[in-house]
Amino acid sequence: MPHINVDKDLPGIRSLMAFSPETAAPMGDLANLLLRSNEGLSMADRELIATHVSYLNDCFYCQQSHGEIAVCYLNGDTELVNQVKKDYTQAPISDKLKALLAIAASVQKGGKFVTTEQVEAAKTLGATDKDIHDTVLIAAAFCMFNRYVDGLASNTPTDLSTYPLRAKQIAEKGYGNHVFSNKQPVPANEE
Amino acid sequence: MPHINVDKDLPGIRSLMAFSPETAAPMGDLANLLLRSNEGLSMADRELIATHVSYLNDCFYCQQSHGEIAVCYLNGDTELVNQVKKDYTQAPISDKLKALLAIAASVQKGGKFVTTEQVEAAKTLGATDKDIHDTVLIAAAFCMFNRYVDGLASNTPTDLSTYPLRAKQIAEKGYGNHVFSNKQPVPANEE
Repeated sequence: MPHINVDKDLPGIRSLMAFSPETAAPMGDLANLLLRSNEGLSMADRELIATHVSYLNDCFYCQQSHGEIAVCYLNGDTELVNQVKKDYTQAPISDKLKALLAIAASVQKGGKFVTTEQVEAAKTLGATDKDIHDTVLIAAAFCMFNRYVDGLASNTPTDLSTYPLRAKQIAEKGYGNHVFSNKQPVPANEE
Repeated sequence: MPHINVDKDLPGIRSLMAFSPETAAPMGDLANLLLRSNEGLSMADRELIATHVSYLNDCFYCQQSHGEIAVCYLNGDTELVNQVKKDYTQAPISDKLKALLAIAASVQKGGKFVTTEQVEAAKTLGATDKDIHDTVLIAAAFCMFNRYVDGLASNTPTDLSTYPLRAKQIAEKGYGNHVFSNKQPVPANEE
């Protein structure tokens, strides 16, 4: 049961964002900027990093949600997403992405766990400063999102069939308050 | 030395926000919403939570920066801020704030470390749902900010005399891109 009185019909972070729409706005903007870009890292790469960090943080809601979004970008390849989530070193992905996932896994433990050697290895494999920046900030942001979701014990649907539909909507339209809340905006003259 | 090529004249998160102004905008908005409010928790309470979490995450830049901002709100009481940072249980603060700091310390370890007993204890001492929400999100957000700062090995001034001036500016004007960068906006007709 959630620690605070949130809408029981909304799952995970969506119930918290409906509780606090003011803070939901910049969090949605940050998610869009970090995850809905193909500049350097692809949207699939970005969701895989988010999914792996959420797995390491043991956040069921986030690893399931973002895993399904990654599946959408990867043409339904659930097996690949599960492999990256649980042991990316054996997954059929690029060495560059493996090097970035190693950095993300260090960030999950704490900022100071990222080593110069990890960063140099990623750069040698073609990672730009922006790739490294985005990897660190995606991993750091999911250390926030995961703690927000579980720290308030928000509802986590255990029926796995509910995640793909929402994932498809986000894959098509992106993050934003329109996906975090099912409340329709009230026209000004009706308030 | 920072892991990526950032402006060497800017410290900590300010150098990263100048590197990535797009993501700086929602991060600054989130900081303002969470830290620059007296609704329920005071601005001093909020900075003390941020400072304690940054201390637990061993982020020197953030614990020093936010500690000095708390000092501004607490009429220069450096001793109190240091006490809360290192052992809030012995500090002369309200039992309600101690209960919220216990929740924040659990969030720092991971969302699932927050217990129903901790939340009930805080509620018994007068904490509202919004107080608990804000405490969890401030703690979670500093698990992001701390990892961003240290995960990219951003410059951390060791000269402690540099922090109070910046703290005074933030205490007076709030967070926002104007405090994260020292670059003046270029008028449109000069670009």
